Amino acid sequence: MRIARIAHPEGMTFAVLEGGQPDGSGATCREIAGHPFGQPEFTGKTWPIEDVRLLAPILPSKVVAVGRNYADHVAEVFKKGAEHLPPTIFLKPPTAVVGPEAPIRIPEWATKVEFEGELAIVIGRPCKDVNRANWKDVVLGFTIVNDVSSRDLQFADGQWARAKGLDSFCPLGPWIETNLDGIEADNLSIKAHLTHEGETETKQDSNSNQMIKAVPEIVEWISSAFTLLPGDIICTGSPAGTAEMHPGDRISIEIPGLGTLSNPIARY
Amino acid sequence: MRIARIAHPEGMTFAVLEGGQPDGSGATCREIAGHPFGQPEFTGKTWPIEDVRLLAPILPSKVVAVGRNYADHVAEVFKKGAEHLPPTIFLKPPTAVVGPEAPIRIPEWATKVEFEGELAIVIGRPCKDVNRANWKDVVLGFTIVNDVSSRDLQFADGQWARAKGLDSFCPLGPWIETNLDGIEADNLSIKAHLTHEGETETKQDSNSNQMIKAVPEIVEWISSAFTLLPGDIICTGSPAGTAEMHPGDRISIEIPGLGTLSNPIARY
Repeated sequence: MRIARIAHPEGMTFAVLEGGQPDGSGATCREIAGHPFGQPEFTGKTWPIEDVRLLAPILPSKVVAVGRNYADHVAEVFKKGAEHLPPTIFLKPPTAVVGPEAPIRIPEWATKVEFEGELAIVIGRPCKDVNRANWKDVVLGFTIVNDVSSRDLQFADGQWARAKGLDSFCPLGPWIETNLDGIEADNLSIKAHLTHEGETETKQDSNSNQMIKAVPEIVEWISSAFTLLPGDIICTGSPAGTAEMHPGDRISIEIPGLGTLSNPIARY
Repeated sequence: MRIARIAHPEGMTFAVLEGGQPDGSGATCREIAGHPFGQPEFTGKTWPIEDVRLLAPILPSKVVAVGRNYADHVAEVFKKGAEHLPPTIFLKPPTAVVGPEAPIRIPEWATKVEFEGELAIVIGRPCKDVNRANWKDVVLGFTIVNDVSSRDLQFADGQWARAKGLDSFCPLGPWIETNLDGIEADNLSIKAHLTHEGETETKQDSNSNQMIKAVPEIVEWISSAFTLLPGDIICTGSPAGTAEMHPGDRISIEIPGLGTLSNPIARY
């Protein structure tokens, strides 16, 4: 099942997307009464997806992210002898979250801003100390996240909160796929297409099978540290190929089965 | 005005504390209808403070923290040539927040867990890009925070999210003092008293006048990065004197005018 959060002519709501193409076009949005956790109750209202705007599919209470989870990305970004470092955990603030098509807005003082296309886990129920074998019990579904990062701020600050946490630096969406058995989380193509001055280039072209820690282990690891709440997001790390974005560009992260998360770049 | 969040015999509520001693004893808790932002409306219900339990005075959507904001603390913790580094920004997850008297629970794998007594800023209204001259416009008040930190995790992970973000690693309280003109934020005594095996020692004894970045500059700096929302917390950094805590200990952070934030230490 695909769950989206939408702005429609009368307001905002969660909705299930039915029918349509893999990219979402032609789908019907069926409004859910209340929250998207558990069996959805439908209000009976529907809209064609072309008549609504997709928002970030969830408003998380926290965004926990795994850094250095793909060896090829570690080698390209972490120079100076840090490429042997193991995966680490950091946080992005909820105020960084935006939806599909919302502009990523770059202040002038945040230089060398790069995209990082990633698989995102959406937590479905309150949990702590989850055994990796039971990860599906606590996960609502998957979506796509762009872990936008100012490389200059990242290395100047040491801590990554600001470099990766500025407003709009956490595009999320386009929807949540809840069919966990239909998504091969340990073997998913992840691509990032950057459009610059009218030319589109595929910059990231990797697979989640390159993760150092895979999804079940990530859920176990993160939940050993933090209580996770429904709607919380875990970003599973970025593969190699990250590159700088400039105002006027467009960045599109594509994961088969999860659609494409596409955002224009603008000046703050 | 002192604003607390309390558990009373019939539920939980925000309340204004009236009368009583500087440590809160003898105060009357007057229930507020709804949220604590803006002019409080009273329901007419009251309880003696001795009949309620004080909770964390606010549930923040994010906890933004300043690291390395006191030169003496930088010198004691950041060895190996890092003591020249400027203040930095990091995040603690909302799930780390607990109230006064709630146990700080230390898992066995989080070693060398230390207290850090700090002045906390409570944001009162949504804001972005606040000029330092206008900081009082966006601040609801001050409270005390203990930025509990596992030094071993902090330096092993590089990123501080886990070391400083485990459940219960952000004690907050005991209440919010909203009289900004009554609190000399740039000249506040900050003390931490550690009780170990029945002996109490004052470990931190400093003053907010030792901050590298003072409160107005912090509000300007943090709000240039993140939109801040009502209830968000800014931890202003810890002075020197941090020390290890063990299960069975008790840690009390004391700031005149803001009371004492006291928590027992327990094994997770």
